[in-house]
Amino acid sequence: MSNAVVLLSGGIDSSTTLAHAKSLGYDVYALSVNYGQRHRVELDRAAEIAKSLGAKDHRIVRIDLLAIGGSALTDSIDVPVDRTASEMAAAIPVTYVPARNTILLGIALGYAETVGAFDIFIGANSLDYAGYPDCRPAFLDAFAALANLATKAGVEGKGRFQVHAPLIRLTKAEIIREGLRLNVDFSRTVTCYDADQHGHACGRCDACQLRRAGFADANVPDPTSYRTSAKSGNS
Amino acid sequence: MSNAVVLLSGGIDSSTTLAHAKSLGYDVYALSVNYGQRHRVELDRAAEIAKSLGAKDHRIVRIDLLAIGGSALTDSIDVPVDRTASEMAAAIPVTYVPARNTILLGIALGYAETVGAFDIFIGANSLDYAGYPDCRPAFLDAFAALANLATKAGVEGKGRFQVHAPLIRLTKAEIIREGLRLNVDFSRTVTCYDADQHGHACGRCDACQLRRAGFADANVPDPTSYRTSAKSGNS
Repeated sequence: MSNAVVLLSGGIDSSTTLAHAKSLGYDVYALSVNYGQRHRVELDRAAEIAKSLGAKDHRIVRIDLLAIGGSALTDSIDVPVDRTASEMAAAIPVTYVPARNTILLGIALGYAETVGAFDIFIGANSLDYAGYPDCRPAFLDAFAALANLATKAGVEGKGRFQVHAPLIRLTKAEIIREGLRLNVDFSRTVTCYDADQHGHACGRCDACQLRRAGFADANVPDPTSYRTSAKSGNS
Repeated sequence: MSNAVVLLSGGIDSSTTLAHAKSLGYDVYALSVNYGQRHRVELDRAAEIAKSLGAKDHRIVRIDLLAIGGSALTDSIDVPVDRTASEMAAAIPVTYVPARNTILLGIALGYAETVGAFDIFIGANSLDYAGYPDCRPAFLDAFAALANLATKAGVEGKGRFQVHAPLIRLTKAEIIREGLRLNVDFSRTVTCYDADQHGHACGRCDACQLRRAGFADANVPDPTSYRTSAKSGNS
């Protein structure tokens, strides 16, 4: 068995990615990065998901990206709500965090080197997040090339780093079906950009809408805990 | 005037790099990343250096790399002392922090995008730190290529990211002479891997020895504050 590092936010995509890596036979080292956007409950949920899916270890790295700002997720910019799919696709959204996946993968690379892993899994998706430059295959391939130049492990040539994004071309409904097949408990995952301290979703941000539509398209019940004030229905 | 982000640890190399970027006419946004290795006094010194050299802003980002370990600088491994130059050059040292410059440059890239900068300066040096894979020109070039794929700013094509490492091929003595020419006050810089809470250097770690030899080779007085217990003399 080889070791793999899996970036785990605790949402649908990263949880399914973890289950996928495990199903391939990897010893999974889960890594959650809290860049200032996460409530404690979401990190606890990530830990719970890592454990329930059989990860060997789970680490949480805190990085204070509020210090550099530039995103609705780390700044005081409002998270947009009730947007249509075409509005979401029209431009890179304010929830874009500058250089987010570069930073996340950089930390994952450091963790990989520490645990002797050459395989890094990320739940990046180029369909739902068409506007995010760092969710594209070209970016992920460039990061893997960088990783082999960047590290003691890469330079010593004991292996070649690879960045795996098994969900990159799947629809949200396909991801949900794959997750259910791999026994991911989606009732424990948190996707919302504005979840409250209990992990309850707003139901209105882009992430909530994509998630809700995904369950509808997959024809399975939506197990999400919405806040009582949340809109319950455009799916 | 263009904006530039300069990674500033507050040591000789990064302080000289900041002065160099300023001398080229950039508006400088200094960024210090505290990955668990720095005393408060060192960050205060970095802030003081940024201000004295005319940076427009200085941000400090805290990232808890202790959570992933793997280095004498973030872990409970002892920092080696009293090593000869050939011992230092023989292998990648235990002070190597896994994926350090990938993480630092990733954060710098996020800050650059936030302030509208396409130029990132880093005090990397391929002579003194021959053993660090992420201080090599090939790594820095690969990071710049990645940056243009990774970001909204890069994808929108308003500019091309560049990573500048003006000290990459200079000896420590050359760096010191360049810093003095640019009015860097080296008495305020902290280099030591094991500085105390007053910023006083141990005089024995690899970083201290390279620094001390640099002042000797440059034929200028060493303004470093050593701890009273520090060895005062192999230069």
